[in-house]
Amino acid sequence: MTRRIIVIGAGPAGTLLSCYLARRGFQVDVYERRPDPRLLDEDESRSINLGLSARGIKALDDLGLMETLRPLVVPMRGRAIHLPGGALPFQPYGAHEGEILHSVLRRDLITTLVDHAEAQPGVRFHFGHRLVELDREAAAVRLVTGEDEEVTAAGDAVIGADGVFSRVRAHMQRGLRADFHQEFLEWGYKELTIPAADDGSPRTRLEALHVWPGEDALIVAHPNRDNSLTGTLFLPFERFDEITDPERFLAERFPDTRELMLYLAKEFAEHPVGHLVSVRTSVWHHRDRVALIGDACHAVYPFYGQGMNSALEDCTVLDRCLGDHPDDLGAAFAAYQRLRKPHTDVLDELSKQNFVELRDRLRSPLHLARKKVDLLLARLLPGRWVPLYTMVSHTTIPYGEALDRAERQDALLRGAVTAAGVALAATLALAVRRGRGGRRC
Amino acid sequence: MTRRIIVIGAGPAGTLLSCYLARRGFQVDVYERRPDPRLLDEDESRSINLGLSARGIKALDDLGLMETLRPLVVPMRGRAIHLPGGALPFQPYGAHEGEILHSVLRRDLITTLVDHAEAQPGVRFHFGHRLVELDREAAAVRLVTGEDEEVTAAGDAVIGADGVFSRVRAHMQRGLRADFHQEFLEWGYKELTIPAADDGSPRTRLEALHVWPGEDALIVAHPNRDNSLTGTLFLPFERFDEITDPERFLAERFPDTRELMLYLAKEFAEHPVGHLVSVRTSVWHHRDRVALIGDACHAVYPFYGQGMNSALEDCTVLDRCLGDHPDDLGAAFAAYQRLRKPHTDVLDELSKQNFVELRDRLRSPLHLARKKVDLLLARLLPGRWVPLYTMVSHTTIPYGEALDRAERQDALLRGAVTAAGVALAATLALAVRRGRGGRRC
Ligand SMILES: Cc1cc2nc3c(=O)[nH]c(=O)nc-3n(C[C@H](O)[C@H](O)[C@H](O)COP(=O)(O)OP(=O)(O)OC[C@H]3O[C@@H](n4cnc5c(N)ncnc54)[C@H](O)[C@@H]3O)c2cc1C
Ligand SMILES: Cc1cc2nc3c(=O)[nH]c(=O)nc-3n(C[C@H](O)[C@H](O)[C@H](O)COP(=O)(O)OP(=O)(O)OC[C@H]3O[C@@H](n4cnc5c(N)ncnc54)[C@H](O)[C@@H]3O)c2cc1C
Repeated sequence: MTRRIIVIGAGPAGTLLSCYLARRGFQVDVYERRPDPRLLDEDESRSINLGLSARGIKALDDLGLMETLRPLVVPMRGRAIHLPGGALPFQPYGAHEGEILHSVLRRDLITTLVDHAEAQPGVRFHFGHRLVELDREAAAVRLVTGEDEEVTAAGDAVIGADGVFSRVRAHMQRGLRADFHQEFLEWGYKELTIPAADDGSPRTRLEALHVWPGEDALIVAHPNRDNSLTGTLFLPFERFDEITDPERFLAERFPDTRELMLYLAKEFAEHPVGHLVSVRTSVWHHRDRVALIGDACHAVYPFYGQGMNSALEDCTVLDRCLGDHPDDLGAAFAAYQRLRKPHTDVLDELSKQNFVELRDRLRSPLHLARKKVDLLLARLLPGRWVPLYTMVSHTTIPYGEALDRAERQDALLRGAVTAAGVALAATLALAVRRGRGGRRC
Repeated sequence: MTRRIIVIGAGPAGTLLSCYLARRGFQVDVYERRPDPRLLDEDESRSINLGLSARGIKALDDLGLMETLRPLVVPMRGRAIHLPGGALPFQPYGAHEGEILHSVLRRDLITTLVDHAEAQPGVRFHFGHRLVELDREAAAVRLVTGEDEEVTAAGDAVIGADGVFSRVRAHMQRGLRADFHQEFLEWGYKELTIPAADDGSPRTRLEALHVWPGEDALIVAHPNRDNSLTGTLFLPFERFDEITDPERFLAERFPDTRELMLYLAKEFAEHPVGHLVSVRTSVWHHRDRVALIGDACHAVYPFYGQGMNSALEDCTVLDRCLGDHPDDLGAAFAAYQRLRKPHTDVLDELSKQNFVELRDRLRSPLHLARKKVDLLLARLLPGRWVPLYTMVSHTTIPYGEALDRAERQDALLRGAVTAAGVALAATLALAVRRGRGGRRC
C-alpha cells in the first residue's frame, strides 16, 4: 500500500522534499499557511531574494531541477565591497570557474518546485491551510483554512517544514525531553531597494553580492533579473527606532548609498524590521511518526547565506536515509538526525562567526591579505588547499568536515609561517656568526 | 498607596521573596499550584532534601530565619566518598570551621518560610491555585483551583517563581525576542533510601554528603534528622529501563549499597525517574510588569548543589535593586537582571563541569591530591587562597568573580610548578656542567 506523508510548510524545504518523496513513491500532501504564490500578482508577493550555492544547486540538480531554474537566477561571481572611502574592491568567489553563487527570488524557487511536484503522481498542495494541532502518536493534523474552516488529515508520518517558529516542532516536543536553543541576534534587518537606472541598466556591478561592512550598520545586496538589487540593512535593534534621518545616517557611513538607494527614506519608514533567530534543537523526530526539516530543526543567522541551502541539502540526506531503510520510517528518521545534526550544529557556529567577519573584518587589510593568500594557495594546490568559505559555499563537503579541514589548513599555515620565521632567524644568526668569524664549540 | 505584587509559585524562591517583599512594605499574594504542605501528613508529602550552603544561609540570615531553621537541618561536614574497593575516604569541606553544608527537607524549608511570611502584614498564600494565563501588560493573572474554579487577580507586578518549566516565563516571553536555552541531561535520577539501623542509629557516617562516583552510575546522598539518608541515583536515561536486577547492578559497582539501601529493589521499581534540565534565558522581565526569579530564569543541573541556594540569593539581589529604585519597578527589574544574570550564567557552566567531576574525577588519585594541595594552600594563605568549590559553596563571592579568581589561582599554581621545574632543570644543568668542568664561551 502506498504510504502517505503529510508535509507542513511549502517553503524551500517542504517543496523540494515533496519532489524527493514523490520520486520514492510516497503519496504526499503539503499544507501551507500562505496562499498559492502562483496566484498572487507581483506586488502582493513582494519576494525576497536568496543566495543559492553549491549545496542547494546539488540538491536541485539531483532531480534535474537546476536546468528549469537557471533562466531565473542571476549569477554572483564574487563580493563587491563598498568601503567608506569610496573604493569598491571585488573579491572573486573561489579560485575556480563555476565557484559562484546565484541570486534567486524565493517566489521563483517555490513556484518552480511546486510546479514540478504537482506534475508527479500522488502529490497535492493545499495552500491557505494553517496547522493548529498535531497528534504526534497518530501522525494526524488539524488545520484551519483562510475561511476559518477546520480540516483534518492523517498519514503514515508528518514532516514539519514549517520554519524557524515551527508549530510541528512545538507539538512534537511538548512534554518530552527535548533540547532547545533559541537566540535572537541583537541586530534586526530591513529591506531596501537599489532600482535599475532609468535606461534599465544596473546602477552598480550586477553579477556580485554587494557588502557594505560596518561595525554599527551592515548592508548586503543581491541582484535581481530586472537589473535592480535588493539590499538588506542590518542594524542593532534599537537603532531602527532612533534613526530619524536614515538617508544621512547611511550616507555618513556608506556615501554611495545616496546614489543607489533612491527610495531609502520611504522604504525605511514603511518596511518592517525583521528578526534574526537561530535555533538548535534535539530530537528531530518522534518515532516513525514525525520528523523536522530545514529551519524547523536548525535555523541560523543569515550571514553565511546557508539557511536555505542547508534546508535543501537536508532533503537529500533524508531521501538517502529513506532509501537505506525502505520499510522503516523510524530508522530512517533516526539515521537522518544522526548523520545531519552534527553538521548543521557546525553551520550554526560558522554563521555566528561570519556575522563578526562581515561586520568587522571585511574592512581590515590584514583580513583581505589573508583571503588573498588563501585563494593563492588554492590556485597553487588545486583540490588540496581549499579555503573554508569555498568549502562551505562551493562544495558539498559536510559542514563539520569542512571545518575540520580548515582548522588543519590553518595549523599548517601557522606552522609554515613559524618555520619560515625560524629559518629566517637561523639564516640571520649564521650570517652574523660568519661575519664575526664564529668558532666551533 | 501600597503596591501589590503577585508571586506565582511557593517554592524556595517564591516563599523567601514574599518575606523580603513584605519587609519593603509591599502587599503580597502568593499563588501555588500544590496544596499547603502544612496540611499534608508525612507520607503524602514525601519530601526531597537539599544541601543548603553559604548563599542560601546568608539570604535566610538577613531576615533572621536561619535561627528558626537550624533545629531542622543536619550539618554535612564534608564528602564521604564510597570507592569501589570499599574504601571510604572523607574530604572535609573547606579549610575553616563553619565551612559546612546543611541538609534540609524541602518541606521544612518551605513551611518555615510560609509561616514567617504569613505573620507579616499584607502577605497571603493561596495554595491549590494554578496559573493558566498571564496578561503581561496588565500584570493580571488567571488561575484555576483544585476544584476547577477560575480566579483572577491583578497587581502592580507579577513575579514568576514557578520553577524550571515556568508558565509565567512562557506567557511573558511569547512573541518577544527572547533567548531561550533548555537542555536535558542524558542522565536521569531516582530516589533511594538508606534507612536508619534497627536501633535508630545511622548506618553510615551521618554528618556528610555521601558520593558513590562512577562513570555509568552515580549516587549522592544527604542525611535526614531521623538518621536515615536519602540517596539520589543518577544513571544514563535508557539504563533505568534496561536494568532488570538493580541490586546486582549497584552491588557490582558499589558493594556497600547492599547493606545500606535495604529497599532498593522496591524503590527502584516504584519511584519515578526524574529529569535534569538546565535553562538559560533572557529577558528576565517585561517592563515594570513581570519578572522571573529562581529556576524560572536560571535552572542548573544539581551537581554543584547550588540551584536552591542561587534561587534564595536571587531574592537578596532583587531586594537590593528594589531598595535602589524605590519608585520604579522597571528600573529595579532591569538592574536585577543586569547584576545577576552574568553570575547565574557562570553557575550554569560550573554545574555542568561538576557533573564530570563527580562522575569521573572524584576517583582519580591525581584529583584527590590536587584537592589536598588546594586545601593546604588555603590553610597556609588564609583568605588569599580559596579553592573554587569553597568560594561557590562557602562564601557569597558572586559566581563570576569566584570563577575569575579560581582561574587566576590556577595560573599561579601552574606558573609555580613550571618555575619549580625550570629551577630544578637549571640546577641539574649547572651540576652537570660543573661535573664536566664546562668552559666559558
Ligand atoms: C534576511 C535573511 C536573508 C537570508 N538569506 C539567505 C541566503 O542568501 N541564502 C540562504 O541559503 N538562506 C538565506 N536565508 C535563510 C532562508 O530564508 C531560510 O533558511 C529558508 O527559508 C528555510 O527554509 P524552510 O523551508 O525550512 O523554512 P521557511 O522558508 O521558513 O518556510 C516555512 C513555510 O512553512 C509555512 N508555515 C509556517 N507555519 C505554518 C503552519 N502552522 N501551517 C502551515 N504552514 C506553515 C510558512 O508560511 C512557510 O512558507 C536568509 C534568511 C533571512 C532572514
Ligand atoms: C535531584 C535534585 C537535587 C537537587 N539538589 C539541590 C541541592 O542540594 N542544593 C540546592 O541548592 N539545589 C538543589 N536542587 C535544585 C533545587 O531543587 C531548585 O533549584 C530549587 O527548588 C528552585 O527553587 P524555585 O523556587 O525557583 O523553583 P521550584 O522549587 O521548582 O518551585 C516552583 C514552585 O512553583 C509552583 N508552580 C509551578 N507552576 C505553577 C503554576 N502554573 N501555578 C502555580 N504554581 C506553580 C510549583 O508547584 C513549585 O512549588 C536539586 C534539584 C534536583 C532536581
